[in-house]
Amino acid sequence: MTAIAFAGARLDRADAIRNDPERLASLMDWRARLLRLEGLDPQIGPDGGLVWGTLADAGAGSDLVFLGLLGGKGCFAEVPPQLAGGIAPYNPALWRALASMEQEDLAIYGAARSLVDWHARHRFCARCGSTTKLTKGGWQRTCDSCKAEHFPRVDPVTIMLVEHEGNVLLGRQPRFPPRRFSALAGFVEPGESIEEAVAREIFEEAGVVIRDVTYVASQPWPFPSQLMIGCHSHADDGAITIDEHELEEARWFTRAEVAEAMTGTEDGAFIAPPPHAVAHYLLKWWLEQ
Amino acid sequence: MTAIAFAGARLDRADAIRNDPERLASLMDWRARLLRLEGLDPQIGPDGGLVWGTLADAGAGSDLVFLGLLGGKGCFAEVPPQLAGGIAPYNPALWRALASMEQEDLAIYGAARSLVDWHARHRFCARCGSTTKLTKGGWQRTCDSCKAEHFPRVDPVTIMLVEHEGNVLLGRQPRFPPRRFSALAGFVEPGESIEEAVAREIFEEAGVVIRDVTYVASQPWPFPSQLMIGCHSHADDGAITIDEHELEEARWFTRAEVAEAMTGTEDGAFIAPPPHAVAHYLLKWWLEQ
Ligand SMILES: [Zn+2]
Ligand SMILES: [Zn+2]
Repeated sequence: MTAIAFAGARLDRADAIRNDPERLASLMDWRARLLRLEGLDPQIGPDGGLVWGTLADAGAGSDLVFLGLLGGKGCFAEVPPQLAGGIAPYNPALWRALASMEQEDLAIYGAARSLVDWHARHRFCARCGSTTKLTKGGWQRTCDSCKAEHFPRVDPVTIMLVEHEGNVLLGRQPRFPPRRFSALAGFVEPGESIEEAVAREIFEEAGVVIRDVTYVASQPWPFPSQLMIGCHSHADDGAITIDEHELEEARWFTRAEVAEAMTGTEDGAFIAPPPHAVAHYLLKWWLEQ
Repeated sequence: MTAIAFAGARLDRADAIRNDPERLASLMDWRARLLRLEGLDPQIGPDGGLVWGTLADAGAGSDLVFLGLLGGKGCFAEVPPQLAGGIAPYNPALWRALASMEQEDLAIYGAARSLVDWHARHRFCARCGSTTKLTKGGWQRTCDSCKAEHFPRVDPVTIMLVEHEGNVLLGRQPRFPPRRFSALAGFVEPGESIEEAVAREIFEEAGVVIRDVTYVASQPWPFPSQLMIGCHSHADDGAITIDEHELEEARWFTRAEVAEAMTGTEDGAFIAPPPHAVAHYLLKWWLEQ
């Protein structure tokens, strides 16, 4: 199987260093590497790889996030003050850049992007409204006023293939490019197991009752910071009733239709999800079963 | 296998109603049921079940959270103003109450507790510091000032059994009752898959390198709102080096030692994790393999 995009960073997160201000400070010298970003987007060098500078390249007033160690050197990313409170706009150039990046770079970039974005959107204490400051190398924000500790957020999302009589259920969201179909997905809510979230989402979005949920694979997704939990399940009844607020269309596709779409053709029954998406991985896994 | 505690609510979350203020309002009449809590703790009736009142029982100035539908009736929980910003203290009576509650009640209580607690600790906008207000039946908070939308948080945590030569790795945190051992666990971080988080945590906490991570089961854990993701993995080398900030001790236990501890005895090699914990479920699953 292909590797899953945004996983597989060889970086050592070295969490003990986050809790040790002296060791952290000793890493922040001329040897340290700074991941160069433009806002939240990666800078790509002439070799197609991520661009790294030194801490001297960080802007005045920027906070630094400790990503981990690579070859013994501290690796950092920058939270510039001008990102504060911003929402990253959709950027087609970013997606072209991601398509050409190596697995390892994608994983480092994804973790950095999630962290930097979280800091930019969490400058205030949700508990008391005071300003918070970056602590523990960027793996926490602390409120001096009420002493609350805030941690980078990761939102678990289930994404699932449903099988019925050898066919697979895929849906179209209105925001998708024309003819693209993908696996249904939704956030896990407080009070739900993964299996319950899968069943609820498929019933809500497509009116399909499922059984026998199995876990297939997971993926960190950095827009902004989801944990995609890929599952498979079975449906006994193939009748579909879509939730029109969520989906434009949902259909059962045959194995042959999926196999054709997964070649990358735009002339098949539908256009497959892009290679970076865990839905692509799930469909590839399904074809190999 | 036993059911997993805090999962299995028969309540229909009816998410379409959250987005439909008219339908939501029409549910909030004399037929609606209010889950009675004391702070964040459950009220237990003479029959051992949760106590439900009506919306007339809600305090002045309380916000209401829509839990879902049960028998066609709207079920709600209350976020009283006096909970604002509080941190739930450890309460031994709560744990005694949980031990006697039915699966169904536990699941409803867990979801309600996570939601009520999240509202109490998220009265302000992390993006701009303004106050936010409860919207969408309590499944969102909205900032009038910067228009940010905030959603109830669920933190994914991996918890894992590691196997080496037929034995299993368990550890003791300093805060555990005497002689209790349980599965190692840790939060999934931005930029990690489930499998990567499992490997990182076991290496950080016990110095053990693992391979072949498989998913076993998941559990919603309402203290305050984790998604516990239970996994199994193998280690080729049994040498242990514990992180003394995290663990007091970690050891390999034989199948016979685990089987004895899981009978509930306090005279075995260790005391097993309590029945509500997913670690208990994982050990039971492991014994049945
Ligand atoms: Zn605060
Ligand atoms: Zn705001």
